[in-house]
Amino acid sequence: MAPHAPAAAEDPSLLTAGPPPHDGSTGRCVVEVTTPASRYEIRIGRGLLAEPGSWAGLPAAADGVIVSNTTVWPIHGPALCAAIAPRHRQVTHVLLADGEEHKDWSSLQTIYDHLLRTGCDRKTLLYALGGGVVGDITGFAAATYMRGVPFVQVPTTLLAQVDSSVGGKTAINHPLGKNMIGAFHQPVRVLCDLDTLSTLPAREFAAGLAEIIKYGPIHDEGFLGWIEANLDALLAREPAALARAVQRSCEIKAEVVGADERESGLRAILNFGHTFGHAIEAALGYGRWLHGEAVGCGMVLASQLSADLGLVPGGFVERMRRLVQRAGLPTAAPAFPSERWLELMRHDKKAEAGEIRFVLVDRPGHAVVRAAPDERVLAAIRRHSATGPGGPPPA
Amino acid sequence: MAPHAPAAAEDPSLLTAGPPPHDGSTGRCVVEVTTPASRYEIRIGRGLLAEPGSWAGLPAAADGVIVSNTTVWPIHGPALCAAIAPRHRQVTHVLLADGEEHKDWSSLQTIYDHLLRTGCDRKTLLYALGGGVVGDITGFAAATYMRGVPFVQVPTTLLAQVDSSVGGKTAINHPLGKNMIGAFHQPVRVLCDLDTLSTLPAREFAAGLAEIIKYGPIHDEGFLGWIEANLDALLAREPAALARAVQRSCEIKAEVVGADERESGLRAILNFGHTFGHAIEAALGYGRWLHGEAVGCGMVLASQLSADLGLVPGGFVERMRRLVQRAGLPTAAPAFPSERWLELMRHDKKAEAGEIRFVLVDRPGHAVVRAAPDERVLAAIRRHSATGPGGPPPA
Repeated sequence: MAPHAPAAAEDPSLLTAGPPPHDGSTGRCVVEVTTPASRYEIRIGRGLLAEPGSWAGLPAAADGVIVSNTTVWPIHGPALCAAIAPRHRQVTHVLLADGEEHKDWSSLQTIYDHLLRTGCDRKTLLYALGGGVVGDITGFAAATYMRGVPFVQVPTTLLAQVDSSVGGKTAINHPLGKNMIGAFHQPVRVLCDLDTLSTLPAREFAAGLAEIIKYGPIHDEGFLGWIEANLDALLAREPAALARAVQRSCEIKAEVVGADERESGLRAILNFGHTFGHAIEAALGYGRWLHGEAVGCGMVLASQLSADLGLVPGGFVERMRRLVQRAGLPTAAPAFPSERWLELMRHDKKAEAGEIRFVLVDRPGHAVVRAAPDERVLAAIRRHSATGPGGPPPA
Repeated sequence: MAPHAPAAAEDPSLLTAGPPPHDGSTGRCVVEVTTPASRYEIRIGRGLLAEPGSWAGLPAAADGVIVSNTTVWPIHGPALCAAIAPRHRQVTHVLLADGEEHKDWSSLQTIYDHLLRTGCDRKTLLYALGGGVVGDITGFAAATYMRGVPFVQVPTTLLAQVDSSVGGKTAINHPLGKNMIGAFHQPVRVLCDLDTLSTLPAREFAAGLAEIIKYGPIHDEGFLGWIEANLDALLAREPAALARAVQRSCEIKAEVVGADERESGLRAILNFGHTFGHAIEAALGYGRWLHGEAVGCGMVLASQLSADLGLVPGGFVERMRRLVQRAGLPTAAPAFPSERWLELMRHDKKAEAGEIRFVLVDRPGHAVVRAAPDERVLAAIRRHSATGPGGPPPA
């Protein structure tokens, strides 16, 4: 898609990136994402969603279609609808059931049906209003409807704002694996309205913290220290702390994605904790643990494996475990049989020729991707396993 | 995906393009396709499929998976399997039911299930062995399995060799429209083995001629004249004539796709006759008329509309009608009510903001895309309509 014009003419302050990290008066900033075929802005701040100015510069389209779920729509749908109405001939919406278990073909079909029944053409602009599930599935619908239409991410969960809405990974789950069917399709804009986080349940908020924490060990030890020092402010959802955390997370993600859009190398580091995490999600059934909860626990296991392989000192594991625990996330893995663990992880998309590949930390602030001997992997898991077959319920 | 090394080291003669159009002794030639993100060869000739050398230079992958249908597999499957076996740790195959009505989610799911159950990773190489349906659906599976794996087109119908296997358009049908769900995903190679055409039923062969004929009026009047002069040789499936027709068709398609991969402009001319044709297919039910039959008739209607709008002399319509008829394709449209025609065509992917856009010839060898008044469109249809509600069965 063609790059759109920068928003400078409307609000010059929006283009101020770099230090100071965001405009102190409005708490707003812009992070740019540049890939070989696209360039788009992540706009971060409070009160953005309802402002018509937030939407200027997007591709012209007769139809605007908001995809949301039955939980988020009543809270934010009408405001978004009003803000974008002047930009389209008609704005319609389609609502999906809430939850990871609905990130499937059936929900996707609901979107396709709506688009075709309302006569949407291939310039239609889709708006994904919701968390990671809505964003991933809307992105995949946009990637595949008439071979591709543009879409906007309007993430309303912390996890989606700092991770899943940025970078163009779209997907649905398959009964045999999470995110197995998908496409790379970059949004034309990401709008992170921090006000939407105020209504987020505590458990979902904590799940988002897992992905923020992730950026520290893999890319920025200074940010890891900042998170440790500001975790209480984040848990209290203090706007300044939230703005900083979202911005820095998006900056790191933008940098990594810009260097490797298609995950041929560097981008895989963003999956720190995810190989273990996906196995937990798959074994327990999607939705029992939230994705961020599984990633939180997965980071502890990946840190342990990193230490066991001699890449980082043992103290790093306790540092990560303590931070994950303080964030309100599980640090003990469910107790599955060893063969089950290995079987689940061989289905990971990073696996190649049957070899499981792990994202490991080789020094705080730097990650590598590599295989590991099965016995080391299982030892790391056992070190942090709960007793009992199903694992503990998350905090 | 990364461009692969040219095959020059293995067989220098393969790289000879330009005049003479193909190697007289082997009837082989190579046409290159270059898009912003990929470069690949279309290899054309007899006996290519079973030759291990045809497959050299493709991406290394542990798993090779042949997707075919129950008609084509028994004829060509074993030879292909033997030729590629040395390149992979394992080669498996998955068979779909034959026919346009199976170009749907259910067949796609059959492929995904096979890939996941056999543990295929994201370097897996898919081979589409069959006609346009197999090629389109395999391409879409490749575009979306783990967010994209490479695939090879091994078209075994004339239509697939000269049109659908080249250019990266992949799709499945939706109950509300043909090819509505899809992606642009270029193959890493196209292998047109002319010997596979010898077993093609006459009706399918004629359907392929429609897409060859198409290239003349939209891009190369000299080629249109050549087809008129050599149609009897083509219908007799004379190898030299077939080789020339397939090569020139692929050259034109490669040129157009290279200039406009995503159909933002020029590429739409390849849909000459398709707006009318898709409407016929949709109204009669997919599979009742073959795609090429609907396109043949659609080209007559589009030529009539071009003449009625004053773009070409009236004689051009008769020239096209006669050629389509000689090829054994229907030239009279089924008699639907006017409103039904318009409604069907408004679902065309080229439609924008409810306006139907037609590919029209503004001089023999050159096409334009534009809207047309409804009454002119309906008049052109009436001029070439059969009597009776369902239209005539194809020849």
